[in-house]
Amino acid sequence: MSQVLTDPALDQLFRTARTYNAFSGEISDATLHQLYDLLKFGPTEANTTPARIVFVKSKEAKARLEPALSEGNHVKTMAAPCVAIVGFDMRFFDKLPVLFPHTDAKSWFDQRSDENLAWVAMRSSSLQTAYLILAARALGLDCGPMSGFDNAKVDAEFFTGTSIRSNILVNLGIGDPASIFPRSPRLGFDEACQII
Amino acid sequence: MSQVLTDPALDQLFRTARTYNAFSGEISDATLHQLYDLLKFGPTEANTTPARIVFVKSKEAKARLEPALSEGNHVKTMAAPCVAIVGFDMRFFDKLPVLFPHTDAKSWFDQRSDENLAWVAMRSSSLQTAYLILAARALGLDCGPMSGFDNAKVDAEFFTGTSIRSNILVNLGIGDPASIFPRSPRLGFDEACQII
Repeated sequence: MSQVLTDPALDQLFRTARTYNAFSGEISDATLHQLYDLLKFGPTEANTTPARIVFVKSKEAKARLEPALSEGNHVKTMAAPCVAIVGFDMRFFDKLPVLFPHTDAKSWFDQRSDENLAWVAMRSSSLQTAYLILAARALGLDCGPMSGFDNAKVDAEFFTGTSIRSNILVNLGIGDPASIFPRSPRLGFDEACQII
Repeated sequence: MSQVLTDPALDQLFRTARTYNAFSGEISDATLHQLYDLLKFGPTEANTTPARIVFVKSKEAKARLEPALSEGNHVKTMAAPCVAIVGFDMRFFDKLPVLFPHTDAKSWFDQRSDENLAWVAMRSSSLQTAYLILAARALGLDCGPMSGFDNAKVDAEFFTGTSIRSNILVNLGIGDPASIFPRSPRLGFDEACQII
């Protein structure tokens, strides 16, 4: 049976972790492989794992991302050591003969409407974005997830000719404590939950 | 600066954690409060925190859930010590004067279409479902997330008269190692990611 993680680990993952607005450090390709080798294990619907991730590190790639950023996210994103563009593959079902080999899972999805497929793929790629955020924190990194950007521009610049659509951006690096404000409130247990 | 978590912690959260098909144990209300007090801190779009969670523990409440379960999820869910129904509140924006107090964030959302609100709320509640899964694992629990159920039946039974819609179910307990098969494959780094 598993144990409860230590308080410093719970702090690092949840209680004192914050969404930073400025980052320093460098993120090696080896660290990005480590990150994927954790997040890939998180559960998704029928093991579809629809997330497709572009890790933007170079100045040239950042320049391609720049026009899609909202004003409030511009400075911090251009300065971050790495920005993960998390998208979802609308044709995720093509991989199911490998990912879910014990039955014909592809047929569960391949006749569905684009609207339904987008819902399914967005949901599981959002789960995977959260796994990415917590895996990054587990590796000692800080995150800055963002939905404030022009999805159509990102799709045109990075995913033309593919079946991938952008979902969420995540800045990655070592967070600057001077870049954050006091934490915003959260709902109390009784406002968000019930036990029946 | 944060440290990399220990290998046993990374195993417990990601590498050896599995989706179980049978559970034992009891989950106290105090543990569910601990769980929420971790997961609530995970980031969501504009701190909207749209997830609303019904923790189903009693035999009576389980009986209300039963007709909505798919055949493949029936036995394991009825036997689990607790099932979390994670939903999202379509009127999440009503809480923004509290959750995002430094500006009028409610006006960013309250004129949007139901279709757009469902997308926004489903996305962030899916992030929160992943926080719940990893927080449960951090507390030494095992999970069994499921999207195979009748959402309309769950909504009618548990959320009538509210603006909440069901998203994902998560069985919680101590996983029985005999209930799992070898882990299904994951995509390699180069199939799911690129670094540019």
